[in-house]
Amino acid sequence: MLAEAQPQAPVAPMASLQELHFEIEQLNSEYARVLDNERFEEFPEFFVEDCLYRVVPRENHLLGLPIAVIHCESKGMIKDRVYAARESTMAELRTLRHFITNVRILEARGEAIRAEANVLIVQTMINRMTEIVLSGFYLDSIVRCDGRLLFKERLCIYNSLLLPTSLVAPV
Amino acid sequence: MLAEAQPQAPVAPMASLQELHFEIEQLNSEYARVLDNERFEEFPEFFVEDCLYRVVPRENHLLGLPIAVIHCESKGMIKDRVYAARESTMAELRTLRHFITNVRILEARGEAIRAEANVLIVQTMINRMTEIVLSGFYLDSIVRCDGRLLFKERLCIYNSLLLPTSLVAPV
Amino acid sequence: MLAEAQPQAPVAPMASLQELHFEIEQLNSEYARVLDNERFEEFPEFFVEDCLYRVVPRENHLLGLPIAVIHCESKGMIKDRVYAARESTMAELRTLRHFITNVRILEARGEAIRAEANVLIVQTMINRMTEIVLSGFYLDSIVRCDGRLLFKERLCIYNSLLLPTSLVAPV
Repeated sequence: MLAEAQPQAPVAPMASLQELHFEIEQLNSEYARVLDNERFEEFPEFFVEDCLYRVVPRENHLLGLPIAVIHCESKGMIKDRVYAARESTMAELRTLRHFITNVRILEARGEAIRAEANVLIVQTMINRMTEIVLSGFYLDSIVRCDGRLLFKERLCIYNSLLLPTSLVAPV
Repeated sequence: MLAEAQPQAPVAPMASLQELHFEIEQLNSEYARVLDNERFEEFPEFFVEDCLYRVVPRENHLLGLPIAVIHCESKGMIKDRVYAARESTMAELRTLRHFITNVRILEARGEAIRAEANVLIVQTMINRMTEIVLSGFYLDSIVRCDGRLLFKERLCIYNSLLLPTSLVAPV
Repeated sequence: MLAEAQPQAPVAPMASLQELHFEIEQLNSEYARVLDNERFEEFPEFFVEDCLYRVVPRENHLLGLPIAVIHCESKGMIKDRVYAARESTMAELRTLRHFITNVRILEARGEAIRAEANVLIVQTMINRMTEIVLSGFYLDSIVRCDGRLLFKERLCIYNSLLLPTSLVAPV
């Protein structure tokens, strides 16, 4: 997969890991940019057709419990979710901002890339100060399609049992 | 411009983008470091002489409204602003900290580099807990001068109509 | 030290700085991951035997005052601290998350690597919203042991005189 990215020049393990890390950071930054600008219709394009996108409390994740705040098993389901979010969000005067940091690659052999990143999401409502609405991490399975990294699986695992009821948009 | 940085070795597009990204991250980290340490007199040195530095609510930015909390059209105006901030800030027992994340390069062809980064600023007052004072993003136009990246334009676009009145320092 | 990392290919200063920066980011991300997952027993392994780990208010750091919230002068002392934290933390339903950003290398000549990074730590208690418990920066002295970066010295300098009394775990 990395050989595909730089076919003529076989790269040292360190260099290729660094480059992959950079690409994952770019993916996360673009992901944040799309959501923070409420360009929800572009959101499904971060995923492959046959994918999994879940937003789940850490407690449930650790115990293997199935309950999730958002659960989409395909790109189609993500699109449905996005349309719903679009409706609700248009009615609200709130903006979110994502801070996705500390990316670490857990596995990068063969087809599958597994990675994590910490995420902090803050919300600003008109005439109110900014507050934290979510703190947690992404647990990702990433694949390369036509040279571009896409999510095969993205779990957003958050450190709480509580979430603002307002959080209908994807995160 | 990138050829200038590595004149002997023509680099692949990916490598040069990665290197430029690294340099922009360094610029932002040094920027944060200067402000978080209240070394305001060094702040104008991040800008070229003929520059634009604005702190503006996202609402106004999206609507193209001219009103800004800080508006400086030259390095000289930034210097004036900094002296004012220095006076006010010396009298206060508060410290700020910048978290500048998710840098993305929007354009890197020819002379102009356009980039964005998310920014979270938290404030700690003596005997109070830390709170968020600003969440938003930087929209930058960056140029290279004598090998060093400088801001031709830096807009700090924040997600609120409200800002603490205390925010007199550059951000 | 950098020659050791890529022995066959003498690298340009820029490339080696970028690689070192990447390695320090990886170190910080792994550090965050271990603490955020309460894997405290792995925490001492980020340090060399003869080390210094301190958590200290910025005010004290600037004035050179010796008082610190946590002060460990050896890996052994860090281990003791960790066992204490483990006991206390097990009894609490709270989770922390670290956002370590804006790494800057202050010195990278010869044996010693000196670096800084901003750090934001948020805490989530069960049935409560997430709040900031610490904002500050790490001031590090880093060495390479058997190819891996370890802390010779890590100071966590935070922007407050107050810390939640609950903060018994290493940060």
